[in-house]
Amino acid sequence: MSTSTSTNTGTALTPNADCPLPHHERERVQLGHGAGGRLTAELLESVILPAVGGCGTGPLEDAALLPSYGELVVSTDSFVVSPLSFPGGDIGSLAVHGTVNDLAMRGAMPLALTLSVIAEEGLPLDELRTVLASAGKAAREAGVPVVTGDTKVVGRGAADRLFLNTTGVGRRLPSLLPSAAGARPGDAVLLSGPIGLHGTAVLSTREGLGFEADIASDTRPLHRLVRALAPYGPDVHALRDPTRGGLATTLNEIAHDSCLRVEIDEAAVPVPPAVAAACDLLGLDPLIVANEGCLVAFVAARSADAALVALRALPEGAQAVRIGHTAEGPAGRVELRTLVGARRVVDVPVGEQLPRIC
Amino acid sequence: MSTSTSTNTGTALTPNADCPLPHHERERVQLGHGAGGRLTAELLESVILPAVGGCGTGPLEDAALLPSYGELVVSTDSFVVSPLSFPGGDIGSLAVHGTVNDLAMRGAMPLALTLSVIAEEGLPLDELRTVLASAGKAAREAGVPVVTGDTKVVGRGAADRLFLNTTGVGRRLPSLLPSAAGARPGDAVLLSGPIGLHGTAVLSTREGLGFEADIASDTRPLHRLVRALAPYGPDVHALRDPTRGGLATTLNEIAHDSCLRVEIDEAAVPVPPAVAAACDLLGLDPLIVANEGCLVAFVAARSADAALVALRALPEGAQAVRIGHTAEGPAGRVELRTLVGARRVVDVPVGEQLPRIC
Repeated sequence: MSTSTSTNTGTALTPNADCPLPHHERERVQLGHGAGGRLTAELLESVILPAVGGCGTGPLEDAALLPSYGELVVSTDSFVVSPLSFPGGDIGSLAVHGTVNDLAMRGAMPLALTLSVIAEEGLPLDELRTVLASAGKAAREAGVPVVTGDTKVVGRGAADRLFLNTTGVGRRLPSLLPSAAGARPGDAVLLSGPIGLHGTAVLSTREGLGFEADIASDTRPLHRLVRALAPYGPDVHALRDPTRGGLATTLNEIAHDSCLRVEIDEAAVPVPPAVAAACDLLGLDPLIVANEGCLVAFVAARSADAALVALRALPEGAQAVRIGHTAEGPAGRVELRTLVGARRVVDVPVGEQLPRIC
Repeated sequence: MSTSTSTNTGTALTPNADCPLPHHERERVQLGHGAGGRLTAELLESVILPAVGGCGTGPLEDAALLPSYGELVVSTDSFVVSPLSFPGGDIGSLAVHGTVNDLAMRGAMPLALTLSVIAEEGLPLDELRTVLASAGKAAREAGVPVVTGDTKVVGRGAADRLFLNTTGVGRRLPSLLPSAAGARPGDAVLLSGPIGLHGTAVLSTREGLGFEADIASDTRPLHRLVRALAPYGPDVHALRDPTRGGLATTLNEIAHDSCLRVEIDEAAVPVPPAVAAACDLLGLDPLIVANEGCLVAFVAARSADAALVALRALPEGAQAVRIGHTAEGPAGRVELRTLVGARRVVDVPVGEQLPRIC
């Protein structure tokens, strides 16, 4: 997931009077700065954008348009997941899927990937081989070549085993112009599959919680789902994959950027029983847990049924469902209609408790 | 510097019978695997290329052609330099220059950069601000926008402060088609500036050697030098910036890929006195020390003088010199005519002793 998911949060940024940390701690990088929630947005707004912005190309995005080539988009992601392998995937496949999916959420099919390796001295070569082979396999399965790379080695203790970066260039499907600011009142909100699998799979493996037998990461490429939506072109208003910060963050970003209210039906959101159990144990809301294999589509009501059928026609969309709709204001609000009929506001997490899940 | 400088080494790869390490150590990542010399080539050939290659686009390159867009090239680099700041630059400016230069060595002007951050928990935000501002400034000075980014945070001890990745997309100047395989017998070998500054500046700062007052990194963008060579188009046969592995590695790569012999005149290679002194102290050959602000151009003899004038017309090429020429075989050999008139063969370092200089 890249920075733009955070630039899109609708939260007041700095100074953060609510921050419970003492001042000198606020002046250091915190784990929550990388979690995709409000702290990430703060870091972006107060540190990163002022430093590297101002080049005349507007805000950072999941996948940015390439200057002079309007049909091309580019996206970058670094991967620091721990452990390197987990049920359903590893850092190699995750790195490929993550970048392919960021391109896809701009309506683009992947043209080329780059792969950069930072390895810690002492990492077994067999392990490096395994995850890179997994990256290669994921790229071939997604139909995208790895065209160039880079390898750096740091001394023991200077990195935790292995970090990868993938950057991708994609070409937009001409009929699709999705944007986080493109949703309109009355849109159907579609979700392509169950939530919470990736974050709980990684966490359970790392912490030895015992859910590993029942939960596997959903990491997979989503560009074919996006291509399946191409026939509904201008009716596909917004697309996003709810990675860091989970479904809650994604819905808030789109509600904010599109200046509308999103209403979600809790009963319609598919949460696998093992994910629900793991979240119960950990005190986590499945809505804020990262996913790596589903997407949210905001589609005009008239095309929603057909779009759902198109998603379900692919294996990765077989469990696609409609989870809610959009409505006129209050702009930026996400409401959940709970199982007992109450409504609660779904917020962006400040800095959730799942470090290094991607 | 990216992987291709290593794929181009003309050395027998695995198994490496000369390797002094016991077998079980050879099966782990070593610092030398990241040094740009023979060990890097081994890692690429035995681990990385078999894993991610086979996508039908040929060998990894410093900057690869983008499929379907022959005029566009893409290049990626991760930066792990320690310390983060050094005389003449910091990890931010280095990350921008490194990728701009990799694009330039394929004859391309930069169109867009991505910037990905991996930060260690506890890094002072002021320090992050400083190096990112430096990256932003370097990008503006190079005339290239940073169009997208990514931010990850890892816990204390899981990374050494800060790593950056930059990936760039560039557009080739139509008249230039340089290639490491493009040099021809009789070419002049031009060098745009003195060698050894970057590696010795970083090393001296890190180790407190006391040369910091006299040596500053040469980190700078080189694309304008390349543009200055455009009028000599087809006569500009090969371009490369001698980063990791230094001038020795670069010359060996081109000699190997172009199947010819390179003859260098030691007296003509500019080594600043402070660099020579630092190398003496450290027992290093300046020819293997990394540079970040000079390039080597292999130019047809008939255009060599004019190309040298064009390089010297820019501040970053003011000290450009002709350091030698190419000749028919033995293919892949680099010979140095020493100050006393002897000849010695210049080899690719196995895994040089300058970790984390970029």
